[in-house]
Amino acid sequence: MTQEMYDTLREKLAETSDIGGVLSLLGWDQQTIMPAKGAAIRANRMATLTKILDEKFRSDDLGKLLDDLTEFEESMPFDADEASIIRVTRRDYKMNKLVPTELKVALMNASNQGYMAWVTARKESDFSKLRPHLEEIVRLGKESIAHVRAGDDSFEEDYDVLLHRYEPGLKSSEVTRVFDELKAATKPLVDRVRERESSIDDSLVHGTFPIDVQERTVLAVAKQLGFTDDAWRLDVTQHPFASSPGIDDIRITTRYHDDFLNPAWFGTMHEFGHGLYEHGVSKSLERTPLARGASMAFHESQSRMWENLIGRGRPFWAWGLPVLKRAYPDVFGSATEDDVYRAVNKLGPSLIRVEADELTYNLHIVLRFEIERDLFSGKIEVADLPEVWNRNIKEYLGLDVPNDAQGVLQDVHWGHGLFGYFSTYALGNVVSLQLWERIRQEIPTLDDQIANGEFEDLRNWLAENIHQHGRKYTPNELLKRVVGTERFDPKPLIAYLTGKVDDLYGV
Amino acid sequence: MTQEMYDTLREKLAETSDIGGVLSLLGWDQQTIMPAKGAAIRANRMATLTKILDEKFRSDDLGKLLDDLTEFEESMPFDADEASIIRVTRRDYKMNKLVPTELKVALMNASNQGYMAWVTARKESDFSKLRPHLEEIVRLGKESIAHVRAGDDSFEEDYDVLLHRYEPGLKSSEVTRVFDELKAATKPLVDRVRERESSIDDSLVHGTFPIDVQERTVLAVAKQLGFTDDAWRLDVTQHPFASSPGIDDIRITTRYHDDFLNPAWFGTMHEFGHGLYEHGVSKSLERTPLARGASMAFHESQSRMWENLIGRGRPFWAWGLPVLKRAYPDVFGSATEDDVYRAVNKLGPSLIRVEADELTYNLHIVLRFEIERDLFSGKIEVADLPEVWNRNIKEYLGLDVPNDAQGVLQDVHWGHGLFGYFSTYALGNVVSLQLWERIRQEIPTLDDQIANGEFEDLRNWLAENIHQHGRKYTPNELLKRVVGTERFDPKPLIAYLTGKVDDLYGV
Repeated sequence: MTQEMYDTLREKLAETSDIGGVLSLLGWDQQTIMPAKGAAIRANRMATLTKILDEKFRSDDLGKLLDDLTEFEESMPFDADEASIIRVTRRDYKMNKLVPTELKVALMNASNQGYMAWVTARKESDFSKLRPHLEEIVRLGKESIAHVRAGDDSFEEDYDVLLHRYEPGLKSSEVTRVFDELKAATKPLVDRVRERESSIDDSLVHGTFPIDVQERTVLAVAKQLGFTDDAWRLDVTQHPFASSPGIDDIRITTRYHDDFLNPAWFGTMHEFGHGLYEHGVSKSLERTPLARGASMAFHESQSRMWENLIGRGRPFWAWGLPVLKRAYPDVFGSATEDDVYRAVNKLGPSLIRVEADELTYNLHIVLRFEIERDLFSGKIEVADLPEVWNRNIKEYLGLDVPNDAQGVLQDVHWGHGLFGYFSTYALGNVVSLQLWERIRQEIPTLDDQIANGEFEDLRNWLAENIHQHGRKYTPNELLKRVVGTERFDPKPLIAYLTGKVDDLYGV
Repeated sequence: MTQEMYDTLREKLAETSDIGGVLSLLGWDQQTIMPAKGAAIRANRMATLTKILDEKFRSDDLGKLLDDLTEFEESMPFDADEASIIRVTRRDYKMNKLVPTELKVALMNASNQGYMAWVTARKESDFSKLRPHLEEIVRLGKESIAHVRAGDDSFEEDYDVLLHRYEPGLKSSEVTRVFDELKAATKPLVDRVRERESSIDDSLVHGTFPIDVQERTVLAVAKQLGFTDDAWRLDVTQHPFASSPGIDDIRITTRYHDDFLNPAWFGTMHEFGHGLYEHGVSKSLERTPLARGASMAFHESQSRMWENLIGRGRPFWAWGLPVLKRAYPDVFGSATEDDVYRAVNKLGPSLIRVEADELTYNLHIVLRFEIERDLFSGKIEVADLPEVWNRNIKEYLGLDVPNDAQGVLQDVHWGHGLFGYFSTYALGNVVSLQLWERIRQEIPTLDDQIANGEFEDLRNWLAENIHQHGRKYTPNELLKRVVGTERFDPKPLIAYLTGKVDDLYGV
């Protein structure tokens, strides 16, 4: 009888998960290869599936099933598939049900309009074009938060509800603690870099890189890391991303600049990290809500690990430089590993987040987190955003913002309704170093392996310790399992960044 | 009140049509670009959406709405969007509801297993590997037909139910009449061609055609016909097809042989014809069950028109030869229009349907239709198929079938559960000539326009007279509107084929 109920649950989850997987494919297609005029009907198709998914995921049948399965769940070990599927689904279900469908639809519409307004606002560098849309999005967001908090008393403050969407269980107070420590340690490092910025020459990576050669080269790199043609795709987009219509259908994208090596090279390694995560989820979790990453920070820990800890590490270039020499003999013919290592690691403050280096990137995120937190606690208003933005860029990075397009309007997130998301980028960096410390202990020959282009031990470690679990654990639970503490700890990241500044710019 | 009911109907149809459009995209992706290992989960995703679609399209709510709208429908002109949407949806709904879901699922499963068995059977040229699957498919098909006929007395015989799926309202007796006339007229033409087969040299199209040049060239041809980047895609598949995830999202595919011009060149023109049909459906029918072609024969009339009546006509090569000369100067440098015209029109019996010429193609279809009709009337059994096949190929085409792979096992259709479909290919040829006669009357300068690569008048005529209506009319109704008779008439096709044989092989 109980087994039957569990089977029914799995059938229902298979259905919702199928719709989710289809939405992921529709989104991928929309952003990569769809003919432009297909946009209008595609938006309708996706809205219809989203509505059907929401209906199915708030049905009373599903709620009753989850209630009735409580005893079954408790009879199982915490980390059994069955118990985890029931536990995590119940959490998702409750959260989904707390917000009325009409409010969700209103938010989706406001976000779509906000997105279009943002495109114009950024083009014209005119914040006033976006402002009313942001005000509406924040208003609806607060309304949605009120519904959630009325039915769930586990949150300390309003903003926690937004964090919870991307980082289940994460509290604003914890992010503040982590980011304050990170900010305090980073700012003096930025000052040191600023004093000696010209000591690194990165002209090597600003050469001539024909796009067809880049395409072949980054695909070869991805294959060395673990990309296989039978389960992956690599395509082109303006804004790269990774998507997984299925555990064995992983689609990553990149973009090519014909005069700059980094975007395609490191972008591909980054998205490979995301893709590998979802490709490594246990098949026993396919067609359940658990067949994704534990959280956005954990996801980002994987992409940053491949992009930065591997791709921007010294050992990697023992394997990577010969690849570059073969692909671009004119540019890299006489370059040494140290030349490339230094060129791809040049640090220095800049205005645009997506172009920022490893060091200052985190300050871009801290700034956005602080603004979001203060916006939702009522300390600041939407109208204050440009001023607060510009003041903090000056304080954190020492730069003057010449216009809003290069300032508060640079990112799509807010206009598109994505509040609570930014933190996960820097938390991903934090987690990647917490994991990296443990990995280096457990794979003592890792540097040698990387220098030889061997990534199998690393992939296996990640699959076993992280990827296979999908969303079984909250980020804090997963941290506890893997590194022994459930807290996000910025110290390994700070030590790593300090070491890099020492190495590149002198002690 | 009535308007409100109609709006509710449109909302329901928008939802089902969105799911249908998504299924079309999922199928396109599956057959063109999906990583191989994505197949298993893709099958699940598609089955889930198919199930949701079937549920929604058999709901009592929808049935009641259609009943309640009868008076509203009757108050409107027959060809008004509103009346047509209600009328055609009701027809689909009734038909869908007559077959129990479990039987549909059983047929789908049998077809999937039949497909896999067919792959093996064809590879090993062993009909016995497919036979039990075909028997099961036919058994389930007959069961399904019995359900339909128990609830709908409009069919003359069992096989009509299968025809109706692809050709609403078409009767087996009408197909027999058309095909008997076509067969009687074609066989003597085939005999004439056989006597003088060597008089045509097609070595021109069996040259060296680098695939990248072919890709650029067929895309340029498609663009000349009406393909635009903002609403179309052209991709590669093993088995070319056209798909429309939306009226403004048309996706056609082709395949390239590096030693044979025809597959990509004529295949692209063929699929363009299908794509143009769905691209031309009135936007007022988007998100309804009417946003497709009237029937498979009407669809095929469009693809065959572009492939054969235009692409294999003399006037086309005035424009087409210079294209070939630029693309393949070594092959076509000294060729004349007549050389190319003759090469692409070489006739002669052959064993494989998809490689057959314009003349013998219809006999391949007649043979399949007769087998299907006799199978479902009980005159023959599945076990008789190879023998009947081989005997009729000998009689119709004068050829000996060396093995079942080149005989009864060559097509995927039956193994995949597609009975009733084949006729539409030859009926498409019939319709294309019925339409062509009318078009040539109404656009007297058509030949000159084609010779100049101008297709706008033709596209406009097709859009206005056929495409815009989508599925508003049954094929017989549409024929009546466009050519004045509701009957499929093979005479124009026979006259055309006779003229071609006269022209190519002498009177």
